[in-house]
Amino acid sequence: MSFNYFMPARILFGKGKLNELHEQALPGKKALIVTSAGQSVKKYGYLEHVENELKTAGVSMELFDKILPNPIKDHVMEGAALAKSTGCDFIVGLGGGSSIDSAKAIAIMAANEGDYWDYIFGGSGKGLEVPNAPLPVVAITTTAGTGTEADPWMVVTNGQEKIGFGYDKTFPVLSVVDPDLMMTVPPRLTAFQGFDALFHSTEGYINATANEMSDLFSLKAISLIGKSLAKAVNDGSNEAARADVALANTLAGIVESTSGCTSEHSMEHALSAHHPKLEHGAGLIMISCAYYTFLAKAGCSDERLIDMAKALGKADASQPMDFVKALADLQKACGVSDLKMSEYGISRDEIPEFAQNARDTMGALFSVDPCEISHADVIAIYEQSYK
Amino acid sequence: MSFNYFMPARILFGKGKLNELHEQALPGKKALIVTSAGQSVKKYGYLEHVENELKTAGVSMELFDKILPNPIKDHVMEGAALAKSTGCDFIVGLGGGSSIDSAKAIAIMAANEGDYWDYIFGGSGKGLEVPNAPLPVVAITTTAGTGTEADPWMVVTNGQEKIGFGYDKTFPVLSVVDPDLMMTVPPRLTAFQGFDALFHSTEGYINATANEMSDLFSLKAISLIGKSLAKAVNDGSNEAARADVALANTLAGIVESTSGCTSEHSMEHALSAHHPKLEHGAGLIMISCAYYTFLAKAGCSDERLIDMAKALGKADASQPMDFVKALADLQKACGVSDLKMSEYGISRDEIPEFAQNARDTMGALFSVDPCEISHADVIAIYEQSYK
Repeated sequence: MSFNYFMPARILFGKGKLNELHEQALPGKKALIVTSAGQSVKKYGYLEHVENELKTAGVSMELFDKILPNPIKDHVMEGAALAKSTGCDFIVGLGGGSSIDSAKAIAIMAANEGDYWDYIFGGSGKGLEVPNAPLPVVAITTTAGTGTEADPWMVVTNGQEKIGFGYDKTFPVLSVVDPDLMMTVPPRLTAFQGFDALFHSTEGYINATANEMSDLFSLKAISLIGKSLAKAVNDGSNEAARADVALANTLAGIVESTSGCTSEHSMEHALSAHHPKLEHGAGLIMISCAYYTFLAKAGCSDERLIDMAKALGKADASQPMDFVKALADLQKACGVSDLKMSEYGISRDEIPEFAQNARDTMGALFSVDPCEISHADVIAIYEQSYK
Repeated sequence: MSFNYFMPARILFGKGKLNELHEQALPGKKALIVTSAGQSVKKYGYLEHVENELKTAGVSMELFDKILPNPIKDHVMEGAALAKSTGCDFIVGLGGGSSIDSAKAIAIMAANEGDYWDYIFGGSGKGLEVPNAPLPVVAITTTAGTGTEADPWMVVTNGQEKIGFGYDKTFPVLSVVDPDLMMTVPPRLTAFQGFDALFHSTEGYINATANEMSDLFSLKAISLIGKSLAKAVNDGSNEAARADVALANTLAGIVESTSGCTSEHSMEHALSAHHPKLEHGAGLIMISCAYYTFLAKAGCSDERLIDMAKALGKADASQPMDFVKALADLQKACGVSDLKMSEYGISRDEIPEFAQNARDTMGALFSVDPCEISHADVIAIYEQSYK
């Protein structure tokens, strides 16, 4: 039993918590608000709410609202330039994982010279040390998907490289997780994001680096998703279900800080790096049954797969494949059991390229898989997942 | 469902983790090591081990080894003066809760003027704001009792006032929880400390401020204690049991950071403030059965008491009093079911004074009890506990 635990973000969790933002010790006097190019943060008043809270706290602000669902390096550089030129001393990420991840990346580049990819490990990244501490980041989540409010990670795409990055100094200093801001997420996105949170938890649980501490968060997150994700998908106005899924997501973020992802994430990043319109959660769902079937057949995580099946709600689970059944049942209950790569314009011919990209850009995650997953295995998992 | 979570200490947990201390980014160049007046940290080589780790890291050091089991304000002031006069820029607390709590208090006073009691709320404390940030604290635990490695709290006695204090800046920056350093704790102290950890968890679970996050840590800590405390007490060489109890204690510290203690702790502090030779854990054990019986009869925490009974190992628990039975069974299994106040020189006549002291010095905890516990109730709980 051995682990390192470090999750220094202050988390304000619960309905109405955004109303407490102005009472917090905010980390600066001028904020760059980083948010999505989409309209929902404006349409539903979340941006105005945040602006009012900041004003009440005596904070001035600039807005950078160009972030795409799969955020790109160019916007990181553009946001950082805006923060520098306008003298912002902290960054507020408002939105889903894409906005908050971008906020973290902008916070690095607003305090450092060069190109964001200079600091990235993997792919064509230069892997240099980041010289200066990033600006502080406040994360305000409007989705329950990436867990980025409780982890140091950010995922940004540069060309066809979609690579995760993060270190001790890229945790948000403050995260507001207010399920009131998630009530308007449409069913399909609720499902995609919820499965992303689920897979952060399951990958953290089967991970070679899993430990007693991460297990605590993993199993709780899995059980909250099993209990409430389908409810939140099928009735977005269900406040209790939204809160459960929001908490699952935050806990899954702590899992990512304490254990981590496995190659399932490398394999998905390869898909959505090549096809930026593919939602990350959708990509994970597409490959998940084949991925966990591979593990169940490999026999390397039998007990852990059974634990996860039980946590997901299958109380009588006794076989590793019971987890795959529970997963498939949940996908059906959430209306996402028939996602097709072909409908996103993905061709079967691209599979070898995906397999190579997964290993080239996020190969490290293969080293924490519970067993070896070879290049041929990866291709087979993609093949079995292709519809 | 609503909570604030903030526990920024980096925790290195596990057998042999102290060997990794020198690899850490330590928060300064010169440490004041604060440790107990007792001989065990020297006899068993823990102090030398820490000194070697610091030396390897290029850190110079001073030693302040006067801390009593119930630490006193005079030593806080003396330690802080030593830190100031020798130019220490961080504090290492090595030992049990008394040493680490003292390290936190010394860290405050090494960076501030005036008297430690100027900053204390309750009793004759002046409740002033602490002007300067405390020096950073590294906590190295040799007992599994107070959870102080994962919370901001310190408890110091001044005359007959034994009062807890702490705020956001008094978390350790780094905590090493290495069960190898706990193998030599004698059975009786192992039990006292383990019950302290248990009560941090149970008080956190019945607390009016309990929440989904604190519950996660509480129930896990209670179950680890139910599983392994008696084993650790009866065979101190049982490494797995020691690790379980160490983890329970760290989790109980997170409970204290996320929920908190109830009046059981106020009532115990009154006892050991008047009778400094009474170990804190022993005092808690003495009053615990009457305290939880009061709550069971009050009917204000029925489900939570049943949950706790189950977590402690009584799988068939169905009544609130089942928790009291499970508690009494564990006290018997740990050989501490027959502690007597009279054997510590406590007289029945002092009870009204204890009841008054509990409310005068730590009255705030009564406001988070699951139901009102009146002055008369407090007296009755002490009376029922008196042997």
